[in-house]
Amino acid sequence: MSLNMYQASIPVFIRMLGNLSAILDKALAHAEAKKIDPSIFFNARLTPDMYPLSRQVQIATDMVKGCAARLVGIDVPSYEDNEATIADLQMRIAKTVAFLQSVSAEQINGSEERKVTLKLRGKEVNFIGQPYLLDFVLPNLYFHITTTYAILRHNGVDIGKMDFLGSY
Amino acid sequence: MSLNMYQASIPVFIRMLGNLSAILDKALAHAEAKKIDPSIFFNARLTPDMYPLSRQVQIATDMVKGCAARLVGIDVPSYEDNEATIADLQMRIAKTVAFLQSVSAEQINGSEERKVTLKLRGKEVNFIGQPYLLDFVLPNLYFHITTTYAILRHNGVDIGKMDFLGSY
Repeated sequence: MSLNMYQASIPVFIRMLGNLSAILDKALAHAEAKKIDPSIFFNARLTPDMYPLSRQVQIATDMVKGCAARLVGIDVPSYEDNEATIADLQMRIAKTVAFLQSVSAEQINGSEERKVTLKLRGKEVNFIGQPYLLDFVLPNLYFHITTTYAILRHNGVDIGKMDFLGSY
Repeated sequence: MSLNMYQASIPVFIRMLGNLSAILDKALAHAEAKKIDPSIFFNARLTPDMYPLSRQVQIATDMVKGCAARLVGIDVPSYEDNEATIADLQMRIAKTVAFLQSVSAEQINGSEERKVTLKLRGKEVNFIGQPYLLDFVLPNLYFHITTTYAILRHNGVDIGKMDFLGSY
């Protein structure tokens, strides 16, 4: 089978959100074992002017729900961004995976040339489907999941790159 | 045009190595402006049991030269891993980009089902072309470039996510 837009997006997104969720589970287990308040991880940053872990997870999920909806041509599900705990972030991830699973290969395939418009920092930006996926969504997704991982590693959580990659 | 294995690999790799190189240039400029020995960045780690910046760049380049060669079915170029400065890392990136540019779309396309075997931690692992690219090479590439970025941000270098993403 030839590579297609569906294969390059939805299963990759679902897989990486699953890995992210497993990493957050390990952070919670570590917090419990070491009697650390999990909100310390929730609010942790690599440096003061980078987003905290909570926002990293919000953006990672935003990227993929936005991508799935825009490549299909349906409304992007709106989230309130009111998560207050790692458990809330896990629910956001689960909700996002459910949305991704609701999108079919037939809906996504053929979206290489679809026009995609989004607002970035208050400015309209126009993309075409394929570079939107390859040069914007995927780098952003991996950036925010890796940064989540890096924040937790920097805070002593016992995770390794295999947690980030998942099994293969 | 339909998405294909070439589009999902080589141009993405070249683009991200260009962004990585630009980030390293900013690190060098920052070191010069602040009178910081650039070897501090070269050797910096996010946490003691993570690889230093130098190794992050080595692995990022290994991932993509390995992928390009294996999808084509040619020998993976061998590097000595003897870089000692950020300038050496820049040369490694440039050498890798030149190799990637030497590979054509005709050579890569149709490699979705190609059998790929590599050694990971001393153990042979078998992949199929498409999941090798989507679930192994790309996550690894982004992981190591994001970690390079994170190390530099954590050390006060004035870079932002647009440096990671590049222009679009």
